[in-house]
Amino acid sequence: MTDLKRRRFLKGAGTAGLAGAAAAVASPAIAQSMPDIKWRLTSSFPKSLDTLYGGGEQMAKYVNEMTDGKFQISVFAAGEIVPGLQAMDAVSAGTVEMCHTAPYYYFGKDETWAFGSCLPFGFNARGQNSWWHEGGGEKLLNEFYGKSKIYGIPAGNTGAQMGGWFNKEIKTPADLKGVKMRIGGFAGRVMEKLGLVPQQIAGGEIYQALEKGTIDAAEWVGPYDDEKLGFQKVTKYYYYPGWWEGGPQLQAFTNLDKWNELPKAYKAILQSAGQRTNDWMLSAYDNKNPPALRRLLAGGTQLRPFPPEVMAACYKASQELFAETSAKNENFKKVYESYSAYQKDQYLWWQVTELTFDAFMASQINK
Amino acid sequence: MTDLKRRRFLKGAGTAGLAGAAAAVASPAIAQSMPDIKWRLTSSFPKSLDTLYGGGEQMAKYVNEMTDGKFQISVFAAGEIVPGLQAMDAVSAGTVEMCHTAPYYYFGKDETWAFGSCLPFGFNARGQNSWWHEGGGEKLLNEFYGKSKIYGIPAGNTGAQMGGWFNKEIKTPADLKGVKMRIGGFAGRVMEKLGLVPQQIAGGEIYQALEKGTIDAAEWVGPYDDEKLGFQKVTKYYYYPGWWEGGPQLQAFTNLDKWNELPKAYKAILQSAGQRTNDWMLSAYDNKNPPALRRLLAGGTQLRPFPPEVMAACYKASQELFAETSAKNENFKKVYESYSAYQKDQYLWWQVTELTFDAFMASQINK
Repeated sequence: MTDLKRRRFLKGAGTAGLAGAAAAVASPAIAQSMPDIKWRLTSSFPKSLDTLYGGGEQMAKYVNEMTDGKFQISVFAAGEIVPGLQAMDAVSAGTVEMCHTAPYYYFGKDETWAFGSCLPFGFNARGQNSWWHEGGGEKLLNEFYGKSKIYGIPAGNTGAQMGGWFNKEIKTPADLKGVKMRIGGFAGRVMEKLGLVPQQIAGGEIYQALEKGTIDAAEWVGPYDDEKLGFQKVTKYYYYPGWWEGGPQLQAFTNLDKWNELPKAYKAILQSAGQRTNDWMLSAYDNKNPPALRRLLAGGTQLRPFPPEVMAACYKASQELFAETSAKNENFKKVYESYSAYQKDQYLWWQVTELTFDAFMASQINK
Repeated sequence: MTDLKRRRFLKGAGTAGLAGAAAAVASPAIAQSMPDIKWRLTSSFPKSLDTLYGGGEQMAKYVNEMTDGKFQISVFAAGEIVPGLQAMDAVSAGTVEMCHTAPYYYFGKDETWAFGSCLPFGFNARGQNSWWHEGGGEKLLNEFYGKSKIYGIPAGNTGAQMGGWFNKEIKTPADLKGVKMRIGGFAGRVMEKLGLVPQQIAGGEIYQALEKGTIDAAEWVGPYDDEKLGFQKVTKYYYYPGWWEGGPQLQAFTNLDKWNELPKAYKAILQSAGQRTNDWMLSAYDNKNPPALRRLLAGGTQLRPFPPEVMAACYKASQELFAETSAKNENFKKVYESYSAYQKDQYLWWQVTELTFDAFMASQINK
C-alpha cells in the first residue's frame, strides 16, 4: 500500500467491513460464501521489531492468498491508528476489526488476560498450543475474552525468552533487592515479592534508561530483538532462562460482532492463517536467535544462568502470587485450575523423552 | 462417506480431478479461481492409530471448511487403495492425487527421503519446522521429491518418541548385541553397527512377534500408540529417549502435476491446512501421551533411560553412518550439509534458555 493509499484508508475507517454486502443479492451462492471484505488490523508492535510486527503481516498475507485477494487485511504498526498497548481496546470498541497483540499486555485490566500469552513458570510454546487446542484453553479464554467483545486466535510465539540484562551479577535472591528493572505484568509482581523494583518502560525507551542509569536491568525478548535495541552496548550480564516467558503466545483478536458476521469459510481461513503464523514466528525466531547470540558473545556479552537458589525463590513467589490472585479474581481462578493441572501432566511426559533427548543433543553437538 | 459410496468412489478413481472443469467457461472469475475439485488421499496408517491416521482426516477437514466444500479430499486408510508403505508410489504414479505418510518410509529407495521426517539424533519438532520453513529445508527436499513427481507439505509430528520395549535391561552397549528388535530405516542401520539385529515388522504384527519371542524388543511411537498395540502386556522395560525420532514429521505428498494444476488459492490453502495439521497432531499427542504414560506406569511398566554410555555409542555409530551415506549418495550429502549445520546452531541457542527452562519446570512441577 502506498503512503497516499494508506492515508486515505486511515481516514476511511467507517467504510471498512462487508464491502460486497450491497451486491450480495444478485450474486451466486459462491460469492455469498466468499464475499469481498476489507479489514484493518492494528499491531501492538513497531515495524522495527520485524518478527513481532511481521506476525500481523504474515497472517494478512496468508488470508489474502487463500481467498485469492477477496479478504484483504491491511496491517498498521503501533501508533498509526492507536498506541500499541491500546490495540485490544480498539478492537473491543469496533474502531478496527482486528489487532495483533500479546494478550498479557491487558493484565492490568484483569490478570486472566495473561493466560492468552503465558504465566511466569507457565507453559513452553508446545504446551501452550496443546492446552489451547486440546486442553480446553481455547474455550475458557474465548469465554473470558467475549466479555470484552474479543475473539482470540493464536498467531505467534517467541519461544522461551531470555531473563534479561543486568549491570551486576545475581548470585543469591538477596541480590535482586533494590534492583530497578524494566519488567512488566505478572513477572514484575513476582519480582516485587523479592524486593526488586519493577518499572514499566516502552521498548523504544529502555536503552536510554539503561544508559542513563535510571534502571539497573531490563528484559525484552531474546538475542535477535535485544541486539536490535542495543542493550549489549550498555550492560554486560545476560541472564537465562526468562522464567516469566517460557512460551509466550501472541494472538490475533477480532471484534466479536465482526467475527460472528463472517462466513464459515473465512472463519476457518483465519484460524488456519493464525496457526500458520504461530509456527512462522517460532521458526523465524529459532532461525534468527542463534546467529544473534553468536554475535553478542563475540562482542563480549557475558551469559549467566539464574542460580538454582534464585530460580527456586522466584518459583515460590510466583506460586504465592497465583494463590493470592485466585482468591481475589474468579475469572483467573477458573482458568488457572485448568492451566496448572494441564501443565503438571505436560511435564510428567516432557521430562521423560523430550527433555532427555534435547539435553543429550545439546551435550553432543556443542562439545 | 457410507461404505457403498466409498466402494463406488474406489472404483471411480479415473473420474477424480477437476470435476467442475467442463462448467468453468460459463462461470464468473471467482469460480475459476476456486473450482470444484474432488481428490483422494491414501494414508499410510490404519484407522485404529487414530492420531496418525487422523492427520489425513484433519487436513481434509480444514481444506473442506476453508473452501466451503468446493475442494473435497476423501481419505482412505492404509490398504483400502494401496498398502500403507506404497502411498508415495501411488501419488508418484498419479493413481491418487495425495497421500499422508512419513517420508522416511521411502528410505530404502534413497536415504534422502528420511530428511522429510527425521534422522537419528536429528531435529526436535521445532527444529524440523524451522529448518523446513526458514533454513532452506523445504527447497532442498522438494527439489529431491520432484524427481519422483512428489510435492511435500509438513502435516504432522509426534514429538520425541520413546526408545521402545525391551525384555531385558540395557546397561552397556554390549547388551544390544544379538537383540532382535523391530526397528527400521536409519535407526536399524545404526543399531546394526552395535550388533543389534534389526527386523522390519508391520505395526499390527509386532505384538505377536514379541509374545512369541520371535523378537526381543520393539519400538513404535510413544505411550498412547504403544499402549493401543498392547506391548505393555508382553514386555517390561520401556526405554527413552527414542534418539532416532526426536521430532519425526509426517507430510502430505501431492502428485507434482496435480499440484502444478491447482489455482494459487488452493495451493495456499493446502499449505496452511498442512501446517495446522502439523500443530494439531503435536498437540493431540501432547494431550494423549501423559495419561497413557500414567496408565502404563500404574500397570507395572518399568521406565528406563538409555545409559549415557549407550547413548554415546549410538551417537558415534550414527555419525559414522551419515559420513558413509554422504560418501555414497550425492542427494543425501547435499541435504545433510544443510541439515547438520542448521542443527548445530539450533542447539547452541536451545541449550541456553529453552532447555534450562524446561529442566527447571520438570524438576519443580513433579517433585
